[in-house]
Amino acid sequence: RIDSDRLWDSLEQMAQIGPGIAGGNNRQALTDADTEGRRLFQGWCEDAGMTMRVDQMGNMFFRHEGTEPDLDPVYIGSHLDTQPTGGRYDGVLGVLAGLEVIRAIRDMGLRTRRPIVVTNWTNEEGTRFAPAMLASGVFAGVIDQDFAYARKDAKGASFGDELARTGWRGDEVPGDRRIHAMFEYHIEQGPILEAEGQQIGVVTHGQGLRWIECTVTGKGQHTGSTPMRMRRNAGRGLAQLTELAHEIAMRHQPNAVGAIGHIDIFPNSRNIIVEKAVFTVDFRSHLLPVLLAMTEEFMARAPAICADLGCEFDSQIVGQFDPPAFDPALVKTVRAAAERLGYRHMDIVSGAGHDACWINKVAPTVMIMCPCVDGLSHNEAEEISPEWAAAGADVLLNAVLETAGV
Amino acid sequence: RIDSDRLWDSLEQMAQIGPGIAGGNNRQALTDADTEGRRLFQGWCEDAGMTMRVDQMGNMFFRHEGTEPDLDPVYIGSHLDTQPTGGRYDGVLGVLAGLEVIRAIRDMGLRTRRPIVVTNWTNEEGTRFAPAMLASGVFAGVIDQDFAYARKDAKGASFGDELARTGWRGDEVPGDRRIHAMFEYHIEQGPILEAEGQQIGVVTHGQGLRWIECTVTGKGQHTGSTPMRMRRNAGRGLAQLTELAHEIAMRHQPNAVGAIGHIDIFPNSRNIIVEKAVFTVDFRSHLLPVLLAMTEEFMARAPAICADLGCEFDSQIVGQFDPPAFDPALVKTVRAAAERLGYRHMDIVSGAGHDACWINKVAPTVMIMCPCVDGLSHNEAEEISPEWAAAGADVLLNAVLETAGV
Ligand SMILES: NC(=O)NCCC(=O)O
Ligand SMILES: NC(=O)NCCC(=O)O
Repeated sequence: RIDSDRLWDSLEQMAQIGPGIAGGNNRQALTDADTEGRRLFQGWCEDAGMTMRVDQMGNMFFRHEGTEPDLDPVYIGSHLDTQPTGGRYDGVLGVLAGLEVIRAIRDMGLRTRRPIVVTNWTNEEGTRFAPAMLASGVFAGVIDQDFAYARKDAKGASFGDELARTGWRGDEVPGDRRIHAMFEYHIEQGPILEAEGQQIGVVTHGQGLRWIECTVTGKGQHTGSTPMRMRRNAGRGLAQLTELAHEIAMRHQPNAVGAIGHIDIFPNSRNIIVEKAVFTVDFRSHLLPVLLAMTEEFMARAPAICADLGCEFDSQIVGQFDPPAFDPALVKTVRAAAERLGYRHMDIVSGAGHDACWINKVAPTVMIMCPCVDGLSHNEAEEISPEWAAAGADVLLNAVLETAGV
Repeated sequence: RIDSDRLWDSLEQMAQIGPGIAGGNNRQALTDADTEGRRLFQGWCEDAGMTMRVDQMGNMFFRHEGTEPDLDPVYIGSHLDTQPTGGRYDGVLGVLAGLEVIRAIRDMGLRTRRPIVVTNWTNEEGTRFAPAMLASGVFAGVIDQDFAYARKDAKGASFGDELARTGWRGDEVPGDRRIHAMFEYHIEQGPILEAEGQQIGVVTHGQGLRWIECTVTGKGQHTGSTPMRMRRNAGRGLAQLTELAHEIAMRHQPNAVGAIGHIDIFPNSRNIIVEKAVFTVDFRSHLLPVLLAMTEEFMARAPAICADLGCEFDSQIVGQFDPPAFDPALVKTVRAAAERLGYRHMDIVSGAGHDACWINKVAPTVMIMCPCVDGLSHNEAEEISPEWAAAGADVLLNAVLETAGV
């Protein structure tokens, strides 16, 4: 079993870096806070005898040598970056549990046949640079590296420039690695495990996603002196498309979800009719046909809704992945480990996207989940218990040992 | 008559300061650009023999002496600050036409009995610091100076601090002046004069206004992993209240208008359900009972709409004035001047709020309007012709001479 106190202590220390305003974190990708968090993690890994390699996407790989160094390694990875109002565990738990697995293996004096590589994937959250899971996407060959470098944050800084500025642009070509298996341990970010009284979620599938960035363009005019009949109010386009996205998702629930979380208004002045509204619809489903139908319906109906308001509608897909099915053999390994350790477990579908969803395209991959309080995530009040954190890390340790060979 | 080329040239020069991104201006109140614009204006006024006084709200008063210095002066004033996407003429025309009146009087070798004071009122637009017409409101005694000083912009800088920082905090107590009459010349900012083929609008009344700043609070949660039924999406509150404000205004049009132009979303991330939406409803009518009924209906219905979404509704009035009726004698003076000069003119109601609306509370006040292309204002593409600008300035000159005595 892993050392629960040591794992919790590392989580606490990481949470000191890039503090939020309500007990959580704001450690967005490639900010100075992210850099500081990466350095802390690097020091810990090196202290645990691992050696670092960084690829051209800033992905950090720490190698723990196996007795048969030529065998393909077993990977454990997640992300250290957070939402602007992020919790302390989303992503971080999976990275630091990977480190804890190595620490525990060393404590026990065990040697694994296969090397183990603990990974921090860059820019998983996608808030600063859309889409989410950008660097694991490039690693898996589904996102183009030039495209990734050109992604801009809200202030116009590009991913490539920020990677160079913070010093995390390595030499290694992304994806130029052989992976025997990859494990990602993550909090559920939803309410199911807690409601069902389970300690472990064995993740068999994930939801697919479409991020539709919409631009509704009307005319910026004086709110007081422009007659009602002359208006082309892009704010009403935003309003009606917010309700449209909700209506479509409701019709497909519980097999789908959808909402608009990102909105920018121009020129954003109390006495100017909204000239332009830019916002992103986030649609998800674990059923590909449902995901496609939702996206299609939205795209089909939005232009006419805007035209009725005298506005133009334009859109662009800024994030997408299809529902992944994780490796059946690894799913079995995780389920068996939970069983062996006596943890209450159930099979579960991941509501969120994860780096594992991309790596699953190029190597056998699986995820382990632990509950979180009230299913709350992407919120500074995100909470888990030390016992929950430890149970999943124990399952991770056991499944990794099983897969790497002792 | 005034010198049309000189007036136009001054407008062009002022438009060089604080350029926008599309040919207009971004010279918001108490920014460095505003300071630069004020200095340019100051230099011009001093060259025209006027002396400056600045009050504690940063209002600038330039005095042109009369042959009977003890008589109460005639005021001409408007504002040099602009919207973030402002036109070149909104406010600026009225200030620089005031300067042109003095220049023309000097050119003609005329002396007026009463002094004339040309004024730039601070922070008319209200974009940076709500409410609009803040400094003329303090001058007129309807807004408290401490309240005004504490007003904050979106970055948290206060009006009082910015006034000190830019060096425009004068000694004079706001309102400590006798005013015989005040004239404000302004572009219409609406489509009526142009549509009717008129050169001059004689402004008899104005619309009243209520700015209702609303805060809808839901819960920021993961958009992918939170089931539809568990959501408390503040973005839907924004959507439904946007439509509510529109529906209410439509029911009262053409006697009223209404829309939401300012929206801030928290935490504004693609994969977080909107936790909080802060936005301002702008309702206007020239009929006080209509304005009150609209506001009341919105306030009565909004909480239940939000409660149905599991959200909380909170609101605050951040700007308000009742429909003003301008001084009948001055209205007659303006109408007679337009008639005498042979300009096509009509009586009109101002759709926008103006400093004149506040000064009207403490002194006889009137407004003159000229058309603007397509009624477009609060937009960088705002346009007027040199002939339109000159016609109103001629009427201003004649009405001021009539009122000040020669
Ligand atoms: N796990 C997680 O929150 N990832 C961000 C990508 C997503 O929105 O699902
Ligand atoms: N004239 C003008 O646009 N003033 C700003 C105040 C308002 O919104 O009416």
